[in-house]
Amino acid sequence: MNTASSAAPVSLVTGGAGFIGSHVARELLAAGHQVIILDDLSGGTRANIPAGAEFRHGSVCDPEVVDAVFAAHRIDYVFHLAAYAAEGLSHFIKRFNYMNNVVGSVNLINGAVNAGTVKCFVFTSSIAVYGANQLPMSEDLTPAPEDPYGIAKYSVEQELKVTEAMFGLPYIVFRPHNVYGEYQNIGDRYRNVIGIFMNQALRGEEFTVFGDGEQTRAFSYIKDVAPAIARSVEIPAAYNGVFNVGGDQVYSVNRIAAAVCDAMGVELRVNHLPERHEVRDAYASHERAHKVFGTPELPVSLEEGIGRMAAWVKEVGPQEPSVFSGIEVVRNLPPSWRTALEQRRTI
Amino acid sequence: MNTASSAAPVSLVTGGAGFIGSHVARELLAAGHQVIILDDLSGGTRANIPAGAEFRHGSVCDPEVVDAVFAAHRIDYVFHLAAYAAEGLSHFIKRFNYMNNVVGSVNLINGAVNAGTVKCFVFTSSIAVYGANQLPMSEDLTPAPEDPYGIAKYSVEQELKVTEAMFGLPYIVFRPHNVYGEYQNIGDRYRNVIGIFMNQALRGEEFTVFGDGEQTRAFSYIKDVAPAIARSVEIPAAYNGVFNVGGDQVYSVNRIAAAVCDAMGVELRVNHLPERHEVRDAYASHERAHKVFGTPELPVSLEEGIGRMAAWVKEVGPQEPSVFSGIEVVRNLPPSWRTALEQRRTI
Repeated sequence: MNTASSAAPVSLVTGGAGFIGSHVARELLAAGHQVIILDDLSGGTRANIPAGAEFRHGSVCDPEVVDAVFAAHRIDYVFHLAAYAAEGLSHFIKRFNYMNNVVGSVNLINGAVNAGTVKCFVFTSSIAVYGANQLPMSEDLTPAPEDPYGIAKYSVEQELKVTEAMFGLPYIVFRPHNVYGEYQNIGDRYRNVIGIFMNQALRGEEFTVFGDGEQTRAFSYIKDVAPAIARSVEIPAAYNGVFNVGGDQVYSVNRIAAAVCDAMGVELRVNHLPERHEVRDAYASHERAHKVFGTPELPVSLEEGIGRMAAWVKEVGPQEPSVFSGIEVVRNLPPSWRTALEQRRTI
Repeated sequence: MNTASSAAPVSLVTGGAGFIGSHVARELLAAGHQVIILDDLSGGTRANIPAGAEFRHGSVCDPEVVDAVFAAHRIDYVFHLAAYAAEGLSHFIKRFNYMNNVVGSVNLINGAVNAGTVKCFVFTSSIAVYGANQLPMSEDLTPAPEDPYGIAKYSVEQELKVTEAMFGLPYIVFRPHNVYGEYQNIGDRYRNVIGIFMNQALRGEEFTVFGDGEQTRAFSYIKDVAPAIARSVEIPAAYNGVFNVGGDQVYSVNRIAAAVCDAMGVELRVNHLPERHEVRDAYASHERAHKVFGTPELPVSLEEGIGRMAAWVKEVGPQEPSVFSGIEVVRNLPPSWRTALEQRRTI
C-alpha cells in the first residue's frame, strides 16, 4: 500500500536527543520526514526526543551500531549533529575528541557510502575551524583551527569533500556558532556560557567568567540555526557547500551575563577566573547562507531568545554541573576545572 | 656513576621496525642516542630492528602501551614514524586510517605532554597533505589533501601546532614523498610501487600499473630522507617548522618500471590496470630544507638507489603479497584489489 507516509523521506539525526539535534528533528518531523534518532545520551536526554521520532540508543563511535541503523532503515538523509562540542576542554581530552568527532563521523560516512541510498549528508561543523582568523569569518578563508575540536571538525569537512569526489555522496556543511536556546544542556561546566550562567543563577552562585569578559561572540538563538539545517536538503544550490549559520549581532560575555541576570531575575555577581587559551573575538559573515537559503525573517533578539530559554530553564530547574571524568592531560587545565576534577576524585 | 652513555639523549622511534623508522633509528644510534623502538610489527619486521636499540612490541593506538613507554624511560626526543601509509587504500579503510594515523599520534602527543621531558616531537607527515596543488609543492601552499591519509597527516600537523601553543611542546614536521630503499616492505600490494615491482620481478609476474603509467613522482632514496630526520633535533632553526624532504628528480611510473627491470635483470612486461583516483603529478620544492639543513651532498641517483635496493631484495627473496583484511568500503575499490580480497575470502 503506497501511502503518503511510506513515501516520506527518511532522515537519520545523530545527536537528536541533544540540543541542536532535537530542534532539527522537530523541524524535520514538521516537514513530514520519518525521523530516526541515534544518540548515546552522553549530552542529550530522553526528554528532548520529540514525539514521533524513532529513538535508537547508541553511539556513532560504535561502527556496529551505525551499520545496524543503516541496515534497518532506507536512509535518505543523514543529519550528523552528534558531537562533544567542548572547544576549550578539547586540549585536555584530545583522544576523546578525535574518537568522538572524527572516528564517529567516519563511521557514519562509511555507513552512508555502503548503504548507497543517502542523497545528502548534512554535517554540523563549527566556527572553531577558523581559529583566530580575519573578521568577519567568511567561508572563503583558509581554516586555521586553534584547538583539537576545530581540527577535528575541519578534518570531517575535508573527509566529506573527498568522499563526494570518490563515492559521489553529496554533503552540506554548516558552521554554527555559540548557539543557545531551549533544550540546551545547562549542566555541562565546560561549554555553553549562557546555560552555565542560567544554572548558576538558579543555584544562587556567582557567574564564572574566564578573563575580563570582554571577549566577544555572535550568539545565535536556536531558531536562527535549526530550521536552515533541516530544510537545506531541499535546496539543490546548498549541495556540496559550506555555510556559516547563526546570529549576526556581536555581544561580549559581560553583556550576556547582564542579559541573563535580567531574564533570571538575579543580581549580577561575577567571579573572574584567569583567562583561558581561546580566540578573543569571533563573528561570521552569513552572506553566503542568505544567498542560498534566502534572507531570514527578523531574527530573534538576544533579550527575547534569552527570555525564552530562561522560561524553559526555570521549568527544568537547576542541574548539578557534570565533571568530565576522562581528562587525559591535567597540565595547564584551567584551575577551576582542575578543582572540580580533584573534588570528584576525592569523593 | 655519570658515564657518557647515561648522558646520551634518549629517543623514542615509533615504527622503528619499519622502513623509514629503522633507518632513522640506525642514524640515531650512530649519533650516540639511546634508542627505544615502539612498533606493532604490522608493517615492520624484527629483522629490521637495528642492534643496540631496545624494542617494545606494541601499538601507538593503545594509550596504555604508550604511557608505559613514557613511564619506563625519560624520553628526550620522539620520532613518530609509525603509520599505515597506503594512500590509495585509505578511501576504503577510513576508520582504520584515522585510528592509526590520528588517534595513534594523539596518544603519543598526550604521552609527550604528560611526560614533560620531551624536547622535540618529530613527525613524518607526507606530501599527501598537498593534494592536487600547484607544482612544485612548497610548504607555503595551503594543504588540500585528496584522500583520508592526507587528511589524517594534516590533522596531526595542526595538532602539533596547537599543542606547541598550549603546552610548549616543540615539534618538527617532515613531508617525505615516495621513499624507497633497503628494508622496505615489498609484500604490501597497496603501496610502494618500486617494492611491488621488485617483488613481481622475483615472482616472475607482470608489473601492475594503474592507468598509463605516465603519472609522475619525485622518488626519494632513503638516504635522502632518514639522515635529515635523525639530525633535525640538533638544529634549532628546524624547531616548529614544516619541511618537504626527498628527491628533486621527477620520474614517471613507466621509467621506474624500466629501471627496476634493469636492476632485477628481468624483461619488461606490464599489466595496465584501470587508472586509480590519485593525484597525477607530484613533486616538491626542497628549498626550505636545504636552507635549514644545508645543501645536500650529491644525491644518490635513481639507478644507484634502485640497484642497492635490488641487491637487498634479492637477498631477502620474494614475499607473498598481503591482503588487507579490514576493508570497510568495497564500493569503487580498484578491481585488482577487489579480486585479491575476494580470493582471500574464499580460502
